[in-house]
Amino acid sequence: MPHIALNSDEPGIRGLFRFRPETARPLNELVEVLLRAESTLSRGERELIAAYVSSLNRCRYCYSSHAAYAAIQLPEGMDLVEQVRADLDAAPVSPKLRALLGIAGAVQQGGQQVSDKHIAAARAEGATDVEIHDTVLIAAAFCMFNRYVDGLATFAPDDPEVYAARAERIASDGYLALLAESQHAG
Amino acid sequence: MPHIALNSDEPGIRGLFRFRPETARPLNELVEVLLRAESTLSRGERELIAAYVSSLNRCRYCYSSHAAYAAIQLPEGMDLVEQVRADLDAAPVSPKLRALLGIAGAVQQGGQQVSDKHIAAARAEGATDVEIHDTVLIAAAFCMFNRYVDGLATFAPDDPEVYAARAERIASDGYLALLAESQHAG
Repeated sequence: MPHIALNSDEPGIRGLFRFRPETARPLNELVEVLLRAESTLSRGERELIAAYVSSLNRCRYCYSSHAAYAAIQLPEGMDLVEQVRADLDAAPVSPKLRALLGIAGAVQQGGQQVSDKHIAAARAEGATDVEIHDTVLIAAAFCMFNRYVDGLATFAPDDPEVYAARAERIASDGYLALLAESQHAG
Repeated sequence: MPHIALNSDEPGIRGLFRFRPETARPLNELVEVLLRAESTLSRGERELIAAYVSSLNRCRYCYSSHAAYAAIQLPEGMDLVEQVRADLDAAPVSPKLRALLGIAGAVQQGGQQVSDKHIAAARAEGATDVEIHDTVLIAAAFCMFNRYVDGLATFAPDDPEVYAARAERIASDGYLALLAESQHAG
């Protein structure tokens, strides 16, 4: 049971977007820029960072969602997402992505946990300033989204199909298109 | 020294807004809605929640900023902000605000730390669903902002005057007006 009375039975953050459209709009604009706009990191890589941080925060709804969004946009699919979650050091990602995921993991613990060493490791693998910036902000943003979703005790479906179906629509249309549609349907 | 090469010497999150205007826009829209738009919580109360969470995350730049923004918009000024930071239980805030700050403190630790008891305590003091929602999202958002600012090792001025001067302009014009101005000045 969510901690507050929502105006729909939509799960996770979707119910919160419906409840408070004024905050839903900038939140969706933020993820659209961070996870889908033009970038030297692929959409799959950025969704993987979001899924990884959500797994560290043990946010089941956000992890299930962004794991599905990453899987559909990565050639290696869900296997890679699960390997990163289980053991980042052993997962078959590029050295640069591993270093960026290391930064994201430090951000999850707290901003001061990001050390010069984390940054140097990413730079040594060719990470740019914008890639480092965006990794820190994606990780920080999911520390917000995870707390928002779980702090209000929203409902997380068990059925993986719910997340997989949504993943296809996020991958094709993006966050803002889906938000607009759900709010018109309201 | 910030972890990345910024394109200005502006401190804290201001340098990050200048560096990445694409994410600055939704981030400022979010705080404008959460901290300044029409609400049954005063602007001072909402800034106090932001300052309190920033103090728990030990983010000096965000705490100094939002403490100043709260102080200028609360009749009790900086004394109350400092009392809340030092000892929430003993601080002379209303019972409802104390309960909402309790929820914010739980969110800072993690979304699952918000218990039915926290929510019941806030409801017993008259907190509404929207007030509870907004408190959770303000606290979650500052878990993002604090990590963003410190995860990139931005500079936090020591001089309280820097924050006080900005507080007057935030209180009169708001976050979006200041953002637009700084970006045109660039």
